[in-house]
Amino acid sequence: MKRIQVGIVGGTGYTGVELLRLLANHPAVEVKAITSRSEAGLAVADMFPNLRGIYDLAFSEPKLDVLSKCDVVFFATPHGVAMNMTPELIEAGVKVIDLAADFRIEDMDVWESWYGMPHACPEIMDEVVYGLPELNREKIRGARVIANPGCYPTAVQLGFYPLLKEGLVDIDHLIADAKSGISGAGRGAKVGSLAAETSEGFKAYGISGHRHLPEIRQGLEIMADAQVNLTFVPHLLPMIRGIEATLYGKLKSNISQEDLQKLYEETYAQECFVDVMPANSLPDTRMVKGSNMCRMAVYRPEGGDVVVVTSVIDNLVKGAAGQAVQNMNLMFDLEEDAGLTQVALMP
Amino acid sequence: MKRIQVGIVGGTGYTGVELLRLLANHPAVEVKAITSRSEAGLAVADMFPNLRGIYDLAFSEPKLDVLSKCDVVFFATPHGVAMNMTPELIEAGVKVIDLAADFRIEDMDVWESWYGMPHACPEIMDEVVYGLPELNREKIRGARVIANPGCYPTAVQLGFYPLLKEGLVDIDHLIADAKSGISGAGRGAKVGSLAAETSEGFKAYGISGHRHLPEIRQGLEIMADAQVNLTFVPHLLPMIRGIEATLYGKLKSNISQEDLQKLYEETYAQECFVDVMPANSLPDTRMVKGSNMCRMAVYRPEGGDVVVVTSVIDNLVKGAAGQAVQNMNLMFDLEEDAGLTQVALMP
Amino acid sequence: MKRIQVGIVGGTGYTGVELLRLLANHPAVEVKAITSRSEAGLAVADMFPNLRGIYDLAFSEPKLDVLSKCDVVFFATPHGVAMNMTPELIEAGVKVIDLAADFRIEDMDVWESWYGMPHACPEIMDEVVYGLPELNREKIRGARVIANPGCYPTAVQLGFYPLLKEGLVDIDHLIADAKSGISGAGRGAKVGSLAAETSEGFKAYGISGHRHLPEIRQGLEIMADAQVNLTFVPHLLPMIRGIEATLYGKLKSNISQEDLQKLYEETYAQECFVDVMPANSLPDTRMVKGSNMCRMAVYRPEGGDVVVVTSVIDNLVKGAAGQAVQNMNLMFDLEEDAGLTQVALMP
Amino acid sequence: MKRIQVGIVGGTGYTGVELLRLLANHPAVEVKAITSRSEAGLAVADMFPNLRGIYDLAFSEPKLDVLSKCDVVFFATPHGVAMNMTPELIEAGVKVIDLAADFRIEDMDVWESWYGMPHACPEIMDEVVYGLPELNREKIRGARVIANPGCYPTAVQLGFYPLLKEGLVDIDHLIADAKSGISGAGRGAKVGSLAAETSEGFKAYGISGHRHLPEIRQGLEIMADAQVNLTFVPHLLPMIRGIEATLYGKLKSNISQEDLQKLYEETYAQECFVDVMPANSLPDTRMVKGSNMCRMAVYRPEGGDVVVVTSVIDNLVKGAAGQAVQNMNLMFDLEEDAGLTQVALMP
Repeated sequence: MKRIQVGIVGGTGYTGVELLRLLANHPAVEVKAITSRSEAGLAVADMFPNLRGIYDLAFSEPKLDVLSKCDVVFFATPHGVAMNMTPELIEAGVKVIDLAADFRIEDMDVWESWYGMPHACPEIMDEVVYGLPELNREKIRGARVIANPGCYPTAVQLGFYPLLKEGLVDIDHLIADAKSGISGAGRGAKVGSLAAETSEGFKAYGISGHRHLPEIRQGLEIMADAQVNLTFVPHLLPMIRGIEATLYGKLKSNISQEDLQKLYEETYAQECFVDVMPANSLPDTRMVKGSNMCRMAVYRPEGGDVVVVTSVIDNLVKGAAGQAVQNMNLMFDLEEDAGLTQVALMP
Repeated sequence: MKRIQVGIVGGTGYTGVELLRLLANHPAVEVKAITSRSEAGLAVADMFPNLRGIYDLAFSEPKLDVLSKCDVVFFATPHGVAMNMTPELIEAGVKVIDLAADFRIEDMDVWESWYGMPHACPEIMDEVVYGLPELNREKIRGARVIANPGCYPTAVQLGFYPLLKEGLVDIDHLIADAKSGISGAGRGAKVGSLAAETSEGFKAYGISGHRHLPEIRQGLEIMADAQVNLTFVPHLLPMIRGIEATLYGKLKSNISQEDLQKLYEETYAQECFVDVMPANSLPDTRMVKGSNMCRMAVYRPEGGDVVVVTSVIDNLVKGAAGQAVQNMNLMFDLEEDAGLTQVALMP
Repeated sequence: MKRIQVGIVGGTGYTGVELLRLLANHPAVEVKAITSRSEAGLAVADMFPNLRGIYDLAFSEPKLDVLSKCDVVFFATPHGVAMNMTPELIEAGVKVIDLAADFRIEDMDVWESWYGMPHACPEIMDEVVYGLPELNREKIRGARVIANPGCYPTAVQLGFYPLLKEGLVDIDHLIADAKSGISGAGRGAKVGSLAAETSEGFKAYGISGHRHLPEIRQGLEIMADAQVNLTFVPHLLPMIRGIEATLYGKLKSNISQEDLQKLYEETYAQECFVDVMPANSLPDTRMVKGSNMCRMAVYRPEGGDVVVVTSVIDNLVKGAAGQAVQNMNLMFDLEEDAGLTQVALMP
Repeated sequence: MKRIQVGIVGGTGYTGVELLRLLANHPAVEVKAITSRSEAGLAVADMFPNLRGIYDLAFSEPKLDVLSKCDVVFFATPHGVAMNMTPELIEAGVKVIDLAADFRIEDMDVWESWYGMPHACPEIMDEVVYGLPELNREKIRGARVIANPGCYPTAVQLGFYPLLKEGLVDIDHLIADAKSGISGAGRGAKVGSLAAETSEGFKAYGISGHRHLPEIRQGLEIMADAQVNLTFVPHLLPMIRGIEATLYGKLKSNISQEDLQKLYEETYAQECFVDVMPANSLPDTRMVKGSNMCRMAVYRPEGGDVVVVTSVIDNLVKGAAGQAVQNMNLMFDLEEDAGLTQVALMP
């Protein structure tokens, strides 16, 4: 079988190296090119020594003629890059999966106000598919361009979905208290990401407005088919990988703990990457470290009118590179879990 | 000046060693006895080598004749111990500060149902003062028995207090999403507290009911002078010290971000251990590590009807031993910050 | 092809769960039984939720009739267990790989003095093979009983090997300064392994004598074919996984940095799990986290007479479960890296 | 009593904020000026919120007229700054304590080759005193310029000192295997210091030559009054604060473990900041976190000819700011431990 030819644009960040880690054991792909303007010429394994002996590739300049020979191109770039190259790539028959935010927001005004730049290709937004397989699996199969969801949005949307599709909670008062490991801040050299500034400490940030807020809101509004009010507070965890989102909703009607559990289990019964924990247990981010799983639990504390969901993912896997591979698998009609059977690292 | 004679019952846990750390530099006290049934005879500095050269004490059996010669006795024991010794101690003229939960809950039925044992001295509950100086300073000065607040309750109550005393939020829908460092789980040898089980991981726990819930609820109800509905979800942080509580309330009336800021600043203007961060900044637990400060910020995201407060303390200091010393200072008419001028360790 | 039937005795520790993680993606095996006296009946995935959806097994009592139907049995037990069951298992035609120390020391007097018990089956020691594939590959292929090396011994022996086989250093003065992550201390509930006792701290331990010392010494003496003097100082790292050993030897004759590099590269040129880093670079334990690789570098600082080697492994993989699988692969004539192609997790 | 007027040049790094933390509780000083070219005008507490409410200072431009009114100026700058301002300051009667490396190396050729720049004031080197109080206390009292020792050099020199002064070990073969927390790498925004690059990992670095090597060598040669051969290998620990140095020497003559212990205890019997641990115990960096103590232990493993010393300090305190304050105390005839009575933070 001919292997799917993969290109990766922007391979020097954490989502780039994570794509390489996952694709290394993928049975049906070959990474053909990995680009980085700043590191062109450097062997990938010199930057990421965990890849020594596995990839023989060097970073190259991002050139259209090379990329257009790929079957699929992943963008693991800052926002604003993918939108400039995508039209030509899909024109050339290449599928595009953008791990950044260029295609995540349907409303161009909202996008431009949060990202502070004009969008380069509003004309293709109509065909973009938001790559959350649990909600959009069929559309993803036929898509040419995938907006791979953000890390927080993945954990929060999967957690709220059963409640919202059933109309169980007051959509005027949704709260998502989310926490992320430091790898979510990227590989950029910033004082705020130093080990001496972040380990042994914990804080909220971005309360006044985080770019994942409009993305999450858009997703929840599609589920609810109505406008929602969402308060989203992200926090920074003193660890490398993992997102946990604790979600709060106000129940509109009486539903027992048992029925909540059943609803969650049934909603995700067929999903290979969503795992509803048994009643009376709770997920820990370490249960998904390095794997593409999302694990969650649902509670109704003291039988009151508040429902609490806690949802965990590895921000670099199900929250980024793993979900991107899952989307690729769907687009190329492969097994959905191809290359994604890693077991989480415990301890 | 004669130094205040201090006894500590149960000195082998983290609150015990923290009391010793703080009292080592206290200008007006002398630690006379520190007890531990299991470690009697062992030099304190052999168990806690940070105290080498500072204390010459050894752990001793907890004996009433020794403790009754102290001016004040701190209980740094599991719950259920202080209540058995306190009546005799106060009879002997000794002041008591219990860092455990024996005296925190006024309603004996509630206490007994959460702690699963009969209370040993309900008859003295009337004179117990809940030792949150920012709310009960004057009562603390005259008290013989102090119930030193729990760690989560300190962070949550101080954070909600300005909103509740002004009646600004819907008390039927209060949410406290709280996170604690692992030292909060104590020094007991439990698999769940192992480094290999907790570092590089994050999880919620105790959603169905944590013992700090009734304590927090009681405190909020006193502030609101009404019954409140509170959802409290604690989480375990992969770090040693620090609690952060992110609090959510639904505003009942319109109040601007600026007025919220002003309310918080004015409420705590005279407090030496509560610091309201400037507008547009956020507290990090590392800003209070090793110190008795509580730092907090208040936000109204997107001008909506939700108010968000984030409040941080060091769980072992303002959340335990530091607050206990602050209470002692008030009870003995010392400077409130005597022995508590440590600057937080950054980095 | 019929899958190799695997039994695991003592599956509740970190080497047990790591075996399960690695075997989950092994193309040629099936885990048939996993035993634990204390947890018999409990589903494996209830203890190790990273295995949810992967294994349907429950822990069972360690019974000979079940284990003797396996093709191979791994012992992931404390020392003293494997030696009691191994004679009957090999009698029944089962191959045995002991991840504990029962078979590591050839000299029974030495073993008994370090482990404080009589050995249960000295009569089979003659046929035991020490399972360090880089040194004993051919013997391993034909073995019925493998003594899987300790974690420190793996890192130290692989690092010293090129120097000793060439007789380049003074064997009367070898120093191994080794550091291990906390998972090496096991999953037992000990105060000394608590997160609050080990994170943000670093210390040497066991200077007067660590059980890995005689094992390492034995290995080095085989390499040198002479008695060696080794000083071995282990240290505890505030992290979960990883061992680094910094080795010091005194050069007996002049050899250039370039020739040292060449010696190391050539020695391990054919090894799939030993990687000599390029000149002027150094290995980090994170370059092998979760993988079966050993990476190392060799230096001659300032051109002096001291040679320094630094060698890193993941203590639970190449230092335990991964090496055990590698041994199994050799014993059953499988690809040596079957089930061991995991890429190290970075970041 | 008039307080000593203190100036700090370069206050935005970790040694700067640590000086401020320590001086905040110093009974006899007042911080008059703290300079930073890049942050001039910014309130110190805005950069370091642990100092909120404690210092009212803002960073200012480093100006000679302001600094020359101080009694003492600390340089917490990169190397190359202090040497340009020191001659004028001492001319103006100001004492100088340089926490960087400008004055640490007596041999100007050696200094210039390691630091890659010409020295600005070789003419004052004669009067510079190397500020290791345990060795140079009397000279420090009378000094105008102090070269405050580096962090590694402090731990290594104090550890080797008793052995070298007694001539017990072969000075042709000294080994120092040292490990430092990440705060030692400073507050600069470097990829290599990111939390996602350093936590959960451990590595050696700088084997070919670290700038602390000539400083340590110089110190050991003064102790031995002869040339020494030293191999120094630094490592990076996944934690914020703390240095541990494991030192290896070859005994030249027979000396019992007991006599080694006695030698160490007697050498440091009068020192307030060096603590020799009792026989059969070992220091952990957490025993000195936030404090000015150096704790150490000495072993002779298996009664062989190698002596092992392990020495721990907090790199920012005894390894930098604390030792600088200790030097200041000596220079101004204050209690040597004034402002330095902090107890190490455990846990």
